[in-house]
Amino acid sequence: MTDIPNRVWNHKWKIDPIVRSLIDTDFYKLLMCQSVFRNNRDTQVTFSLINRSKSVPLANLIDEGELREQLDHIRSLSLSRGESTWLRGNTFYGKRQMFRPDFVEWFENVRLPAYHLERVGDQYELTFEGSWPEVMLWEIPALAVLMELRGRAVLNEMGRFELQILYARAMTKLWEKVEKLRKVPELRIADFGTRRRHSFLWQDWCVQAMGEGLGSSFVGTSNCLIAKNRDLEAIGTNAHELPMVYAALAQDDAALARAPYDVLADWHEEHEGNLRIILPDTYGTEGFLKNAPDYLAGWTGIRIDSGDPATGAEVAIRWWQDRGEDPTKKLVIFSDGLDETKILELYNQFAGRVRVSFGWGTLLTNDFRGLAPDDGLAPFSLVCKAIKANGRPTVKLSDNPNKAMGPASEIARYKRVFGVGDQKAMDVVV
Amino acid sequence: MTDIPNRVWNHKWKIDPIVRSLIDTDFYKLLMCQSVFRNNRDTQVTFSLINRSKSVPLANLIDEGELREQLDHIRSLSLSRGESTWLRGNTFYGKRQMFRPDFVEWFENVRLPAYHLERVGDQYELTFEGSWPEVMLWEIPALAVLMELRGRAVLNEMGRFELQILYARAMTKLWEKVEKLRKVPELRIADFGTRRRHSFLWQDWCVQAMGEGLGSSFVGTSNCLIAKNRDLEAIGTNAHELPMVYAALAQDDAALARAPYDVLADWHEEHEGNLRIILPDTYGTEGFLKNAPDYLAGWTGIRIDSGDPATGAEVAIRWWQDRGEDPTKKLVIFSDGLDETKILELYNQFAGRVRVSFGWGTLLTNDFRGLAPDDGLAPFSLVCKAIKANGRPTVKLSDNPNKAMGPASEIARYKRVFGVGDQKAMDVVV
Repeated sequence: MTDIPNRVWNHKWKIDPIVRSLIDTDFYKLLMCQSVFRNNRDTQVTFSLINRSKSVPLANLIDEGELREQLDHIRSLSLSRGESTWLRGNTFYGKRQMFRPDFVEWFENVRLPAYHLERVGDQYELTFEGSWPEVMLWEIPALAVLMELRGRAVLNEMGRFELQILYARAMTKLWEKVEKLRKVPELRIADFGTRRRHSFLWQDWCVQAMGEGLGSSFVGTSNCLIAKNRDLEAIGTNAHELPMVYAALAQDDAALARAPYDVLADWHEEHEGNLRIILPDTYGTEGFLKNAPDYLAGWTGIRIDSGDPATGAEVAIRWWQDRGEDPTKKLVIFSDGLDETKILELYNQFAGRVRVSFGWGTLLTNDFRGLAPDDGLAPFSLVCKAIKANGRPTVKLSDNPNKAMGPASEIARYKRVFGVGDQKAMDVVV
Repeated sequence: MTDIPNRVWNHKWKIDPIVRSLIDTDFYKLLMCQSVFRNNRDTQVTFSLINRSKSVPLANLIDEGELREQLDHIRSLSLSRGESTWLRGNTFYGKRQMFRPDFVEWFENVRLPAYHLERVGDQYELTFEGSWPEVMLWEIPALAVLMELRGRAVLNEMGRFELQILYARAMTKLWEKVEKLRKVPELRIADFGTRRRHSFLWQDWCVQAMGEGLGSSFVGTSNCLIAKNRDLEAIGTNAHELPMVYAALAQDDAALARAPYDVLADWHEEHEGNLRIILPDTYGTEGFLKNAPDYLAGWTGIRIDSGDPATGAEVAIRWWQDRGEDPTKKLVIFSDGLDETKILELYNQFAGRVRVSFGWGTLLTNDFRGLAPDDGLAPFSLVCKAIKANGRPTVKLSDNPNKAMGPASEIARYKRVFGVGDQKAMDVVV
């Protein structure tokens, strides 16, 4: 029997919205948003899309009208009752009422602010301006929309069978990774792949495949909507935007040097246990740890998000030992450019020496490398970052100069203030 | 929207019938059936299922009750109006009214005769007795039912995701074969995979994949129902059962020696063009060709279905040359145990020397080797053959002694009458 009403309904859609919920975003965005809502509600910020893969001519691939329709659709979204209930009623990281009533009430009424879109050459300039807690909500959906629209442009050229084989191959590819990972039952892996996913449906499939294949080794997803729909743990802590904005707001070099620790002092007040995870690399891991206040060594763990991950973990282990902490009790979360081989390699190197966990991103939810003509579906390095706060430029150094951003003069100043010397450049895959 | 009526309907099914149409069978069965209907309508035959793969314990894998339900369902089938119209109105091999009105009228009223099913050890004994044109219609559906029920027994143990990955892998596997084959645009390949297919839906998918991937290189399918549903050419000529029964009916050695030629004399009267294809191996290709009447050298081509295929084709080429025929005008159809590597190898060896064509069977529609635990879905060698005609045993020698069948004393007699000497034994894969 053909399902006539369903078919008619499907043909009535004017667009196929990519982001259909305000909680189709990373959990750490909401945690950070609450923190910003409390501490820096009136800070004015500018976020901007940056395509680090210049070889992908987004403006040639994606129709501007379609992009506007998708972004406009996101601006029409508001928190649904069920989503609000989930935020209010769910237990996150073992804690009830993680999200305070005043924040949820604000979130229920929020609409995403206006965007500025302009074609420049074969790229788009896409920026968002306004109060920090509102603008920051654009990052993940904006990235997901760009990534998926670029994918759709390629998929539009493919026949019905080519599509079926494409997804058959992608499923097989992911499942073969899962089969390798399931051989290590003590692994702990979460999905961190929302922002650069192939598509929402594909991410949702990947999450289900991870759950089916890895059982309790799959600890959850950073995607709140998928966590809610599939009754999974929502995973995530905090990101570079906090120290970047705090640093930009600093009035002098002394305040700048303090800024990354101010972020964690605020966080320390708000969170405990597994949410106390240091992200040390914004202005260089070595200097950050050397100058860190003692209470940070008591935190639960660290997230390694740039530079050579094994080196970063060794630095953290030495730092804990120097501060009289037992590294075997500490959590090390690897989250940069992971694939199954790297995951197993890092696991083998660090299991037993620390508690190891992985936030697997783009190569979990978008490994379409080699599956389309001219590799047209390969993921690429797209980010959306705070570039200004209260009119002042932001800076990121990270442990990989290829990931650095900001005006050259400010980068030089930050390097001086944070004592960052030579850094090893590494390719940014995704 | 959940499609409630569809879901309710699906849950009402008492069984999921494997064969749902009398034309879900090979085209050559219908051509042969018409010939038998005209020439040997009252011959009484016994067909029997033979599992040449003793390592597959069919009676342990398949529930007897389920098997009976499937076979009973087939006995409830009759030709539908649309099927009858297709047989009457369609053009087959360029000819209108290939099926004569008296035959179609008989076919419209036919019901498949009773079966005899008994468990013997870990195998089933399954036989069919009655008039030849009716009993012969059991062969293909009986094989398809056994093969698919064995597959279902294995699939029943698999989880939802395992199933999805299984078919993703099988699709990828077939598509990779198609991609190799499409590099040779002059290829001509038909689907011959009905009898030992993984399932009807899978065969239907394989046919679509071949059409999509190979374009005009895919010349059609032996499956009448799929040919009808998908507007494809129905492909096939004749099979060993004709010479086997004609031979069994022969009253003395002289008549036996003539029997295979009698078959083709009848066929010559009924068919022309691309349907005049010699199947020479029933009692040894060499002897058959040596003693063949001259008019057979004028036939369109030959089908190589046992023994080493390259050797068989070389023998045919020499035979045509000896009889003053131009081999480059002749069609050679390879149909035994093909896979894409063998197809390309044979194509490269014979393209230009003869017109080459391929009937791709089990490894097209059932290559699930390596895809299930303990290789539980690998195809195996199941056949259903005429074993008696008017009370006398049938014999098949073929060009591979591992495919020979019949009582030992009769095999010896046939070898003497047809002058078959030593033969090279070859593994029977499927």
